[in-house]
Amino acid sequence: MTHQIAVIEGDGIGQEVIPAAIEVLESLDLDLEFVDGEAGDAVKADTGEALPQETYDLAADADATLFGAAGETAADVILPLRDAVDSFVNIRPAKAYPGVDAVRPETDLVFLRENTEGVYSGHEDDLSDDLSTLTRVVTTSASEKLAAFACDYVEDSDDHDGFSVVHKANVMRKTDGRFRDGVVGVADERGVETDEVLMDAFATHVCLDPEQFDVVVCPNLAGDVLSDLAAGLVGGLGLLPSANIGDDNALFEPVHGTAPDIAGEGIANPTATILSAAMLLDHLGYSEESQRVETAVESVLAEGPRTGDLGGNADTDEMTAAIVDRL
Amino acid sequence: MTHQIAVIEGDGIGQEVIPAAIEVLESLDLDLEFVDGEAGDAVKADTGEALPQETYDLAADADATLFGAAGETAADVILPLRDAVDSFVNIRPAKAYPGVDAVRPETDLVFLRENTEGVYSGHEDDLSDDLSTLTRVVTTSASEKLAAFACDYVEDSDDHDGFSVVHKANVMRKTDGRFRDGVVGVADERGVETDEVLMDAFATHVCLDPEQFDVVVCPNLAGDVLSDLAAGLVGGLGLLPSANIGDDNALFEPVHGTAPDIAGEGIANPTATILSAAMLLDHLGYSEESQRVETAVESVLAEGPRTGDLGGNADTDEMTAAIVDRL
Ligand SMILES: CC(C)[C@H](C(=O)O)[C@@H](O)C(=O)O
Ligand SMILES: CC(C)[C@H](C(=O)O)[C@@H](O)C(=O)O
Repeated sequence: MTHQIAVIEGDGIGQEVIPAAIEVLESLDLDLEFVDGEAGDAVKADTGEALPQETYDLAADADATLFGAAGETAADVILPLRDAVDSFVNIRPAKAYPGVDAVRPETDLVFLRENTEGVYSGHEDDLSDDLSTLTRVVTTSASEKLAAFACDYVEDSDDHDGFSVVHKANVMRKTDGRFRDGVVGVADERGVETDEVLMDAFATHVCLDPEQFDVVVCPNLAGDVLSDLAAGLVGGLGLLPSANIGDDNALFEPVHGTAPDIAGEGIANPTATILSAAMLLDHLGYSEESQRVETAVESVLAEGPRTGDLGGNADTDEMTAAIVDRL
Repeated sequence: MTHQIAVIEGDGIGQEVIPAAIEVLESLDLDLEFVDGEAGDAVKADTGEALPQETYDLAADADATLFGAAGETAADVILPLRDAVDSFVNIRPAKAYPGVDAVRPETDLVFLRENTEGVYSGHEDDLSDDLSTLTRVVTTSASEKLAAFACDYVEDSDDHDGFSVVHKANVMRKTDGRFRDGVVGVADERGVETDEVLMDAFATHVCLDPEQFDVVVCPNLAGDVLSDLAAGLVGGLGLLPSANIGDDNALFEPVHGTAPDIAGEGIANPTATILSAAMLLDHLGYSEESQRVETAVESVLAEGPRTGDLGGNADTDEMTAAIVDRL
């Protein structure tokens, strides 16, 4: 069966790292069909829309989407795209790799971020000249759906025993209280172990001792900020892939942005996008190939050639070719 | 003129670190009068209230308040106490000290956290069996007041040239947009330099290179989480003081909690509370004495005796006595 993959490069280094990941995918000789779509600042400048309806539809209809990055229009592209694929969870692994300078080389975390609500609900109002409000939304149904996914995630793997639930229910008593109760309730029923950590305490403790955490289940904004914190601990955003998973569809993207300072030079680190492609493979059932890509990436990170952000002097093509070589 | 200081030990190690800080303050022979108030888990167990009205009034009427920590009831104590002193800004320095093991020894930051609104507004509703909402509130007036304080703060000091404004206005467009516009608007008028950083990007970059930041102005929850992150970078919560400043009043507290694992043993690190007392002195106009306390603390951190959390084997009394000795 042919899998149709929507490919959206977007802006900046998106146009360099996505082709690198496609090169890796193509070298595996699988039954994948790639269909290009446009989104981002450049498209907006041309057409007035950062995410044209046809790109939205392309992502909604494809078996999976690989997205690069968007500039100023990032939120106008990525939030609707997450909606296009009906994503309820954003998986963000943050792992330090041998060969990469990391503040905390012991870091090996997976964030499971709620992907539909919280402060991302989109309900804001200007109530007066002085006052604006945002309605933060938390539902038991979304919390339980995330929890069920988290339980499957730890049960399907030999590496994980349970998960941490991060929240700020001491202040957001009803909303994060509902989140916590929903998540912990499902885990208890399923017999999956959990512990609770306040969002602020997590920020301290993950710096002091990242090994005390493993799988981390969070509300939307907490997942955004704390996974970016973990990116800092493992040596930067150039390494972190992510998967936005829906029931019948999914979207894969590097956690980094468009890197305008180096865009166009062909020197961007393709790791995060190639690892996102590995997550895509796993999602489509190609788990053996996914593992091969990850292993090849790890070996190139450890031995080179590496891009400049990793202290090497390879360009994107050379690093990508080395990864393809080791597949 | 006698300054009246409300002293609220609270629970756990609050009952050990507050007496340590009072010992330091008393050794300076200033015209300070200390009046004790009760708050926290133990008081709640006794009286049903974590913060009795008379303690609230004591803090509201005193020239300044020194607070230790509260356990389960932390939010029920600290949020109303911030209100009692009409605090609009929470000052949280996060500085790595020679002699203390730090993930990032270059860290030297000051967070100026908005202290009244954001998700701390307290408006939450259960709208159905499935759905709760929280109304996040941002006003131009609070944002501008914080900004004016931040401008004074950098202008009054030789160490700071401007400040960073942290927000998530790409998602919270109206509320954090209002915050950003209010803060940047005042700074522009005052000729104070600012740069803007998204909250998630700040979390990454402060780990990778804390020296690129100095004074950091944030909404309430961002300040909570990012200052705790900085605590992780400088070696833990045992070091971080804070000041909740109002127009005519103020409240000083260590950033750490009650540390139930070591409470009652007399081995808690008094640094955060003694540095909070130094901030209190500065606030009351005793800036020379404040500086002396800070210098004495720094010298003891560097040379010992140090408490167990810092790798030493001194108890709270020994470390405090050493600080008093060096005043
Ligand atoms: C661009 C922005 C809207 C987005 C988010 O906040 O989710 C980004 O930070 C991310 O984490 O993918
Ligand atoms: C205890 C809690 C309500 C409080 C906060 O969130 O402000 C604490 O984390 C702090 O930072 O002082």
